[in-house]
Amino acid sequence: MPKITETAIEVDPKLPVIRMTRDFAAAPEQLLRAHTDPELFARWVGPEGMDTRIDHWDARTGGSWRYVSARDGEEYWFRGTFHEVRPDRIVQTFTYEGEPDGVALETLWFEDLGDGRTRLRAQSLVDSFEDRDMWLRSGMETGVDEGYAKLERLLADGTV
Amino acid sequence: MPKITETAIEVDPKLPVIRMTRDFAAAPEQLLRAHTDPELFARWVGPEGMDTRIDHWDARTGGSWRYVSARDGEEYWFRGTFHEVRPDRIVQTFTYEGEPDGVALETLWFEDLGDGRTRLRAQSLVDSFEDRDMWLRSGMETGVDEGYAKLERLLADGTV
Repeated sequence: MPKITETAIEVDPKLPVIRMTRDFAAAPEQLLRAHTDPELFARWVGPEGMDTRIDHWDARTGGSWRYVSARDGEEYWFRGTFHEVRPDRIVQTFTYEGEPDGVALETLWFEDLGDGRTRLRAQSLVDSFEDRDMWLRSGMETGVDEGYAKLERLLADGTV
Repeated sequence: MPKITETAIEVDPKLPVIRMTRDFAAAPEQLLRAHTDPELFARWVGPEGMDTRIDHWDARTGGSWRYVSARDGEEYWFRGTFHEVRPDRIVQTFTYEGEPDGVALETLWFEDLGDGRTRLRAQSLVDSFEDRDMWLRSGMETGVDEGYAKLERLLADGTV
């Protein structure tokens, strides 16, 4: 089992964004695949014990996506569009359907660090500091960290 | 010719957004149509003297769009996705292809004021104050105002 680097989660005092950074023992193409292949994505996204099923997935510039995560009989639906999918960056929109008026603009960057390592930077932008802080208090930190730990294992065992 | 209300354009000192408000002598459904029907949209968007041609248009939740505006032999390409299209609101992404790394999250609200009038509120959210201020300095104010004046005329002559 590889050493699991913790996810660094930061807020910006001046912008309504959440930023996350994590280094992976992987090439940029592997991280891109982990975020665009629906079967792979469903295997690692979200906290431990959550089951994710893809409802719709078209991971190309101009496409859209929708999935449901379930645990203990509770279902959480998410959906959005892929504004852009390119080797070094994905830009997508994100709505949790339980709060249908809320929309985040998410950007993921895959930065090659050399030596088979890639830095994943993720930024989530919303239009109010209150909404941003609500997301932070929702436990997303645990979900993100546990999800990335699952992704590390899929990379380590050669699945991705 | 109806009295043309000027577009109110505001920035927020604390958020990287531009907000625009304009009242139209129209029902919300007419404004929705003006923003979702590609032939109508091409007739009013942008400044005077600019010719717009739709390259791709799928104005439904999860769809995407692309168009080109041309004047004096210069072409300006724009593209994005429709995150959500519903009777009271459109949420879309927006990129000017001349600055391919820039992405705005745009929200349009159609608010029924009664008496056949509808308030259009538009918000454009980006992830830096510098980018926001650059857009403001780019002359977008004139383009938006002239575009909405064309839309007023299409409403007044019964085209929309």
